[in-house]
Amino acid sequence: MLTSTSNAKVKQIVQWQTKAKERKKDKVFLAEGLRMCEESPVELVKEVYLTEDMLEKAKGDKALWGKLKKTGYETVSRDVFAKMSDTMSPQGILTVLRQPEYHLEELILASDTPLFVILENLQDPGNLGTIIRTGEGAGITGVIMSRQTVDIFNPKTIRSTMGSIFRVPFLYVDDLADTIDTLKANHIRVYAAHLKGTEYFHDTAFNEPCAFMIGNEGNGLQKETADMADKYVRIPMEGKVESLNAAIAASLFMYEAYRQRH
Amino acid sequence: MLTSTSNAKVKQIVQWQTKAKERKKDKVFLAEGLRMCEESPVELVKEVYLTEDMLEKAKGDKALWGKLKKTGYETVSRDVFAKMSDTMSPQGILTVLRQPEYHLEELILASDTPLFVILENLQDPGNLGTIIRTGEGAGITGVIMSRQTVDIFNPKTIRSTMGSIFRVPFLYVDDLADTIDTLKANHIRVYAAHLKGTEYFHDTAFNEPCAFMIGNEGNGLQKETADMADKYVRIPMEGKVESLNAAIAASLFMYEAYRQRH
Repeated sequence: MLTSTSNAKVKQIVQWQTKAKERKKDKVFLAEGLRMCEESPVELVKEVYLTEDMLEKAKGDKALWGKLKKTGYETVSRDVFAKMSDTMSPQGILTVLRQPEYHLEELILASDTPLFVILENLQDPGNLGTIIRTGEGAGITGVIMSRQTVDIFNPKTIRSTMGSIFRVPFLYVDDLADTIDTLKANHIRVYAAHLKGTEYFHDTAFNEPCAFMIGNEGNGLQKETADMADKYVRIPMEGKVESLNAAIAASLFMYEAYRQRH
Repeated sequence: MLTSTSNAKVKQIVQWQTKAKERKKDKVFLAEGLRMCEESPVELVKEVYLTEDMLEKAKGDKALWGKLKKTGYETVSRDVFAKMSDTMSPQGILTVLRQPEYHLEELILASDTPLFVILENLQDPGNLGTIIRTGEGAGITGVIMSRQTVDIFNPKTIRSTMGSIFRVPFLYVDDLADTIDTLKANHIRVYAAHLKGTEYFHDTAFNEPCAFMIGNEGNGLQKETADMADKYVRIPMEGKVESLNAAIAASLFMYEAYRQRH
């Protein structure tokens, strides 16, 4: 059992919790809580840390206990767990996972009618997590992010995905323009969610392979990016509303595609 | 100019920033930032505090300067402003407003086809603010909240409404059951957003007067509340998603009503 907060392993976990650079270097991410451990794919799990209380609880849960015997685990004192944890009232179980890697070409082939969400420079970790969660619900193929988008492995993002991080494919790309070209070459229509859209999102045909581009919270899509779209599409807005929250806008597009496809 | 952070007025503002009870007692709320001051209805503004830098800026903005001359204002030192402010990098302008009061009967009569959102015990201030913002965009009549719902005058809620707080009517009610009865008596159909719904939200007719009930983030609607609905309606979900974020769910319902009504 780890009981010292100055243990090297504990310090390492804190680094992974707080620094995107450290997570990237070691190609890992952390997921806290019982449900996240239960839903994590065994092949990605590298380490599991839990308190003794949680260990007792885990032993009573057949599926979880079976998983922990496969992955291995280490118990830690409550003080050590509090140090490792990103939350105010930790549940007492933390999973260290390998970052999954997805490839655009594979994702394009994964569905007859792929549906992508392209995020340009989103900055709010909660928004990103919510898009992943809603994206799974709406059955999207994957999320493509510009390199300047917030780190998807940020603990707050992971938490707000509610486990969808394990099931929705995603990738960062260095050059969105290249990616948009690739999508178009594969007969995927690219729509920019844009205030200047002349067509409403619920009047646009999303039942063919398509991708939605959603811009940064404050500034929307950059002009050069938006201009690469096949079409600007708009969410109608009453009153004096100038824009919607990025996660809300993405969700409306994704579920409109769902509605049309079913 | 206020320069001392121990000034009684400054202490009062801090109380209003941090304590729902204090806001309620004095029937006020605070809105920070330039845009919020610009959008605030003159008849609600009680006080405006701003730094000297911001005052210079305001003098160059005809509409804002005209407003400040009407409402009056007081300059404060940067230190005092930092103390008053709820944000990390304050813009330097804070508006104190009277809490508006709306009445259910008036709201019901305000539209031929009213559209209400009923929130039961929502706890996340950001979710509530986002619902108000999206609600204005979707043209809803108003938001009705159970008494245990998070305080709508919470600074984080106010911020995430992006000004819609000044334009979307809302009210807290002590007894949701009474309110639902009143809505039904006025021929407003009440739908519960519920996992047990047998009908999908995009297959349900929302073009008649209606209200959507959205439950608490963790637990959904209480059974007694949900059972008062005319119908349980569901958002379809692929994969292993068990529920969507409350603000996302509310937004999908509101914009589905918009789509059907236009």
